[in-house]
Amino acid sequence: MTSQPSPRRGRGRRPAAEVREGVLRAAAGLLLAEGVKAVTFDRVAAAAGSSKVTLYKWWPSAGALAAEAYFTHSEQRLEFPDTGDLRADLTAQMRAFVRLLTEDRTGPVIAGLIGVAQTDPELSAAFSRHYSGPRRALALATFEKARARGELRDDLDLRILVDQLWGACYHRLLIPDEPLTEEFAVALVDNALDGALARRPGDPDEAPAA
Amino acid sequence: MTSQPSPRRGRGRRPAAEVREGVLRAAAGLLLAEGVKAVTFDRVAAAAGSSKVTLYKWWPSAGALAAEAYFTHSEQRLEFPDTGDLRADLTAQMRAFVRLLTEDRTGPVIAGLIGVAQTDPELSAAFSRHYSGPRRALALATFEKARARGELRDDLDLRILVDQLWGACYHRLLIPDEPLTEEFAVALVDNALDGALARRPGDPDEAPAA
Repeated sequence: MTSQPSPRRGRGRRPAAEVREGVLRAAAGLLLAEGVKAVTFDRVAAAAGSSKVTLYKWWPSAGALAAEAYFTHSEQRLEFPDTGDLRADLTAQMRAFVRLLTEDRTGPVIAGLIGVAQTDPELSAAFSRHYSGPRRALALATFEKARARGELRDDLDLRILVDQLWGACYHRLLIPDEPLTEEFAVALVDNALDGALARRPGDPDEAPAA
Repeated sequence: MTSQPSPRRGRGRRPAAEVREGVLRAAAGLLLAEGVKAVTFDRVAAAAGSSKVTLYKWWPSAGALAAEAYFTHSEQRLEFPDTGDLRADLTAQMRAFVRLLTEDRTGPVIAGLIGVAQTDPELSAAFSRHYSGPRRALALATFEKARARGELRDDLDLRILVDQLWGACYHRLLIPDEPLTEEFAVALVDNALDGALARRPGDPDEAPAA
């Protein structure tokens, strides 16, 4: 703790980057401790020792602030492994994603952010910008490489493969009719890669063997 | 309109079923006109001419009331076609589902219900009970029949196929990084049935052709 009793004005005012960093840290603290509903401009301003006017100037909604805070301060543990074996890499990736979604600290926060995003377009935009957009791009790049190696069908819409995998996990998180487990993650990858159809030799749509 | 100025007590009190029906109708009206946030016990009680005490007695949360109202009063247009051709039936089903999710009237309501469900366990339970649970059971029954006809792999986890299909559509609804269209629905079914892997004759996991 410093001995500074309150934010000073005029000379000694903190640089904007420092204030911004403090606000994001305060918002992340509230978010992780009490959930997305606790991230209001009032409470974040008080916790960060910043003025509410500043917050209004920098973030279009408290939800947008919450999303940026979360993705700035959460560990980025979703790097895509790339060993050259798509099934192994995807399985590792989906297991890690399921662990993230089912952790006490992070699962409810991500669900809460997506929840509030349904009625807060600014939060929705921040979620895309800071999280789902870059993640989608990363997955697509991995799929493109696997296709270049000959592992994926040429006529496959790779963007839809993202929805089939990550969307299935979010489905079990957000509409929890069935359990979200690592076993689910493993079987999901197999389902998506191998397809649901029974392989019947001689089917018209089966590749000829010679 | 009747000439009854306000709900009467004692003799002349409306039967419970009629009151309940009126409350659900009022809640559905608010939900479709103004979204899930408009469905509060205060506003529904006022719109239905019922007492708030009654509403508290019957519904654990305003969100749970909103969910029951929606699924009681929305047209049930998701009947599963069953012509004996899984690809055709699933494609018809997913196109209808995408149309439902992208309609001005219904899409934002469903997204809003799922959104609020993330911080309202009673709404989440009502959503499962009135909607996603029965829909999941219906899809599973269809998949079981297709498997009995030999269309689906014996070792497939059919519950996961539900997440791959419906979950992918919800993914584009709730995290709108990519467009939710009928073309998407058609390609999604093909992806899920055929699998993502390139078919390479002679692969160890490929069925022999003879």
